[in-house]
Amino acid sequence: MVEFIDVRTEDGVTRRSFSLGVAGEAVPAVLWAPQDASGPRPLVLMGHGGSQHKKTPGIRTRAAQYALRLGYATLAIDAPGHGDRITREEAESNMREVGARVTGRVAADWSPERLKAMAERMRKAVPEWKAALDAVQTLDFIGDAGPVGYWGVSMGTAIGVPFVAAEPRITCAVLGLAGLRPGAAEMEAAAKAITCPIEFVFQWEDAVAAREHGIALFNALGSKEKAMHINPGGHMEIPGFEGASWERFFKRHLTEGAKAGVLQAA
Amino acid sequence: MVEFIDVRTEDGVTRRSFSLGVAGEAVPAVLWAPQDASGPRPLVLMGHGGSQHKKTPGIRTRAAQYALRLGYATLAIDAPGHGDRITREEAESNMREVGARVTGRVAADWSPERLKAMAERMRKAVPEWKAALDAVQTLDFIGDAGPVGYWGVSMGTAIGVPFVAAEPRITCAVLGLAGLRPGAAEMEAAAKAITCPIEFVFQWEDAVAAREHGIALFNALGSKEKAMHINPGGHMEIPGFEGASWERFFKRHLTEGAKAGVLQAA
Repeated sequence: MVEFIDVRTEDGVTRRSFSLGVAGEAVPAVLWAPQDASGPRPLVLMGHGGSQHKKTPGIRTRAAQYALRLGYATLAIDAPGHGDRITREEAESNMREVGARVTGRVAADWSPERLKAMAERMRKAVPEWKAALDAVQTLDFIGDAGPVGYWGVSMGTAIGVPFVAAEPRITCAVLGLAGLRPGAAEMEAAAKAITCPIEFVFQWEDAVAAREHGIALFNALGSKEKAMHINPGGHMEIPGFEGASWERFFKRHLTEGAKAGVLQAA
Repeated sequence: MVEFIDVRTEDGVTRRSFSLGVAGEAVPAVLWAPQDASGPRPLVLMGHGGSQHKKTPGIRTRAAQYALRLGYATLAIDAPGHGDRITREEAESNMREVGARVTGRVAADWSPERLKAMAERMRKAVPEWKAALDAVQTLDFIGDAGPVGYWGVSMGTAIGVPFVAAEPRITCAVLGLAGLRPGAAEMEAAAKAITCPIEFVFQWEDAVAAREHGIALFNALGSKEKAMHINPGGHMEIPGFEGASWERFFKRHLTEGAKAGVLQAA
């Protein structure tokens, strides 16, 4: 049973905050839905990026738009070591550190220590996402019949790849801003196990994900329907039209259930 | 002055056929517009693929949709050595030959003779397109104020790259299914001279355009706004959702005149 700590309605969208106990830790979660929502509806899970949190502007803006325009619910949780799971001082320090890396001011850190810490975070995050999904599917305004989509780029993809691979309730996902580095066997196996439609967004001058690693991750995805969208610019410079593309991707798969045909184009 | 040979209206769309004299040759052209169109409107130029012609199903279907849904006019012409510029027997022979290449049954032919013939076709096609654009811009239901978009993949890109580079009236273009081969200096220079927004569609298992050549062409494009959409499958297997993406791309640039912002996504 989900107990809401805080419920607020603004401009037609209701935001409910709650906390999940997973493996002895409290995982803060937030759920957006249309005001007065009742009955089952599509659900999008949104995984934030490194140093960000569950209510980061990109997530809360899209969550409100999806509620208003598509009638969807959106769920976000704080990743291990992020958001309300750390102090404000730690969060600010992380933001400075990640900010320096993604803008290329500081070289990406692929030390064995950091890779180990990241792998541990992934393993912790997957059961947390599952527990969060279990919890909200008991709500009458979401239900357990699905469909469920996932959105997460950068760290949201590092966590999203093993999560989407392990979670059959997810029927489509937007991933990106991440790569498959040589020797990342766990990530590669997870990518290969993914079979749902994927839209993979990638920035061509990304200081933390090399072109060849981005292509390698796209190639590893086991999905029959997968599209890679490459745009110029850095990690924080995804063009606005890709946001519109994500919305249409979710609409196509979560509302319309469309099958991809083939164009008579060539 | 444009003299129409044939004018037909079907389901709200009027199709006008005409012929242009360019460098002593007759270039067959066709123009679609909403029935009873009057006053200026956006125009899309559609360049067909190798062995195809100006009224190939992909072109005529999208031309009708653009007329009905967006109010646009669409112009297509037969490329040199294509459509009504050759006999039915020659067209059928070309179709078999190109069909064998694009499906990988026969290896792509990059012999010096074929490259030379292709380069000559490009040089001939660009002034033909310009003459066709000049002609239709004199019509009251199109006008010369623009905006003008270009769509063409495969041979439509081989011709489209030099054409879009040389034609400042074109303000956005969909290209794809083609690559930049090492040593193709003319193509590379033209790609670099392009500055308008581009959506570049590419098939990851294309038998006639290698991945690295597709990426090289995308990289060479001088445009600040350019997106490469990679999908699995062969030359003839562009997924249907890319067609919807082209329509939105044109709508964004020809109707809305949108500037690309940056998402708070990462």
